[in-house]
Amino acid sequence: MAATSSPLIGFSPRVRQSPFFTATQRWGAKAYSTYNHMYMPLYYDSPVADYWKLVEGVTLWDVGVERQVEISGPDAARFIQYLTPRDLSETQAGQCKYVLLCDETGGIVNDPVLLKLAEDRFWLSLADSDVLLWAKGLALAGKWDVEIHEPDVSPLQVQGPKSPEVMAALFGDWIHELKYFWFRETELDGIPVVVSRTGWSSERGYEVFLRDGSRGDELWEKIMAAGAPFGIAPGAPSTIRRIEGAMLSYGSDMDLGVNPYELGLGRLVALDSGLDFIGKAALARIEKAGVSRRFCGLAIEGAPLHGGNQEHWICRYNGADCGKMTSAIYSPRLDFNMGLALLSLEAAEEGRAVEVLGPQGPLPAKVVPLPFYDPMKSLATGAAERTQPAASA
Amino acid sequence: MAATSSPLIGFSPRVRQSPFFTATQRWGAKAYSTYNHMYMPLYYDSPVADYWKLVEGVTLWDVGVERQVEISGPDAARFIQYLTPRDLSETQAGQCKYVLLCDETGGIVNDPVLLKLAEDRFWLSLADSDVLLWAKGLALAGKWDVEIHEPDVSPLQVQGPKSPEVMAALFGDWIHELKYFWFRETELDGIPVVVSRTGWSSERGYEVFLRDGSRGDELWEKIMAAGAPFGIAPGAPSTIRRIEGAMLSYGSDMDLGVNPYELGLGRLVALDSGLDFIGKAALARIEKAGVSRRFCGLAIEGAPLHGGNQEHWICRYNGADCGKMTSAIYSPRLDFNMGLALLSLEAAEEGRAVEVLGPQGPLPAKVVPLPFYDPMKSLATGAAERTQPAASA
Repeated sequence: MAATSSPLIGFSPRVRQSPFFTATQRWGAKAYSTYNHMYMPLYYDSPVADYWKLVEGVTLWDVGVERQVEISGPDAARFIQYLTPRDLSETQAGQCKYVLLCDETGGIVNDPVLLKLAEDRFWLSLADSDVLLWAKGLALAGKWDVEIHEPDVSPLQVQGPKSPEVMAALFGDWIHELKYFWFRETELDGIPVVVSRTGWSSERGYEVFLRDGSRGDELWEKIMAAGAPFGIAPGAPSTIRRIEGAMLSYGSDMDLGVNPYELGLGRLVALDSGLDFIGKAALARIEKAGVSRRFCGLAIEGAPLHGGNQEHWICRYNGADCGKMTSAIYSPRLDFNMGLALLSLEAAEEGRAVEVLGPQGPLPAKVVPLPFYDPMKSLATGAAERTQPAASA
Repeated sequence: MAATSSPLIGFSPRVRQSPFFTATQRWGAKAYSTYNHMYMPLYYDSPVADYWKLVEGVTLWDVGVERQVEISGPDAARFIQYLTPRDLSETQAGQCKYVLLCDETGGIVNDPVLLKLAEDRFWLSLADSDVLLWAKGLALAGKWDVEIHEPDVSPLQVQGPKSPEVMAALFGDWIHELKYFWFRETELDGIPVVVSRTGWSSERGYEVFLRDGSRGDELWEKIMAAGAPFGIAPGAPSTIRRIEGAMLSYGSDMDLGVNPYELGLGRLVALDSGLDFIGKAALARIEKAGVSRRFCGLAIEGAPLHGGNQEHWICRYNGADCGKMTSAIYSPRLDFNMGLALLSLEAAEEGRAVEVLGPQGPLPAKVVPLPFYDPMKSLATGAAERTQPAASA
């Protein structure tokens, strides 16, 4: 028996490579996970070094794992509305919306960004679950007149305070006019892309959706070259920055067993709209009865949790289990351990002292407001502009 | 730019740990992948050393990633039949069946093993796709009277020629009477399990489905202790052995774009049965028109492909593209590179000379019969008993 503290990832044809995979290896990605049956790089230098490059400059991420489900056809608009409790009646072509997809119990199937390409054509830019199968099953049995497939689309993210300059150098000055959660279909030296002002960093940022998988390496290098004067570096979704911004991660912070009200996302559920969507009856019951647990932030004592948590950690309040901590990591700029937790209403109140049961034993923690870090309120970042978590748009 | 040849796997709460995860780390798993949103160990000593331990002895595998979808209720039997083209009318409680799940085009959604627990209660022991969402979507929109959920069930596999002795030491002599693709509900010192004579090794073997996730470590160590006199070692699904036996891997050798007839699995499609199942009309059209490509084996020249392929490799016949090689690896006992490929009918004929376009350049290959290794026909293994690929039962 010899415990291996740093196991390797095995590569096989069972898990797909994104069009940027070769580039991520060439640029020295040191660790990977998988997401939607595809490899996702996690960091290049170190998670902390990559974080500083993100928050002080600009980084380029291979998030080809954000697979798209394209839904088109005569029933597409009604079907998309059936999939999500969020009211989409005012959504315009060219606009993105953060949406929750719920099942018949109100549990969360996925939390994608919706892109409305046309009145009868949509992309769902997915978190990690097979929404393709969910949507196909619903459409088949429900006899909806829609086409559903996974198109050849693979996103990159260009994130960080210097991202507007890099994007303007690549695409032109219209980048500065692109509104938060809007997109434009365009091209870069003949490479077809969609450019949106979205991202998963809580920093200013953009996504570039590649629409021709054969040109991934070329697109990656063009962005790196244009970003060089601004010090661009390869990067990846930063657990530190997303927890600072209280952005949620599907699989960690929510799954089929969690409903929107527990996450404080009731504004994404249009109960009073007259719209028909999956889970409406269950969500109405939950809203009426009230939830028994609630998402909250924790400031956790003890040594820096550089590696974060590798599974959910039980929390205790007044000596009894009160829920679970779903995500945690040490913030180098805030200099404390941040935790996201789903706790009983009583335990989730601001200021409560709780205990988090990590593998090394119990850690004292305090319930604190979210987000942990807000550039507008922080003395540390005079120059950073107001950013919002994806959940806000 | 510094390419990293052996990247690490990152662990986070987004991907789940099986109940045996701690044991796999303690026993020294050196590499992991993920499967059904869960970590799966890949090898302990080395892929080749683990292979020899499997084929000459017995190994214990954490395949908790084979998540179960449980379907129960008044419509369960009819709904299960609706999900698969295989005729289940003769299937008895206590029996397992290898089934394909197809979509409305005949494309393969998953290739699970079905366990019939009762006339109105079934498990689908899954390959890597979210059949939970597929089945829930179909049942919801189709108004089927079924309950669908993922139960607390996590399989281990005990595989190899010495597996009957280990299993009999644990469970008693009835193990020797357990027929291929049958199972029994039982317990081990109070730990609730299902024991089946199934597995993904092409060797004699069993699965032990743990029904209480809190007791994973305990179950793992009990099997290791009982297996010690027989030289049991920790192991994992062996790419070498499964390709020798021509067992298929969902994601590598098939996906939504592949139909059963292309895989030579027409016997799992009950077109003439009068049964109603998803994809029947499309499959009837495909059967009538005939397929344009076919699954076949390749013997590939060149240096040993110890690492296998990391993505599909294009194949050429007479100078033109003729399909793709989906899986490949070097067999230490056969001393050649085995490949599985989906090729045009013309190129797939036995004896054809084709070219495989690997990353290092083209490799000459010849189409050969499957499986590559059959103990009954091999001079190398007088003692090994007849084994069958999972697809046979």
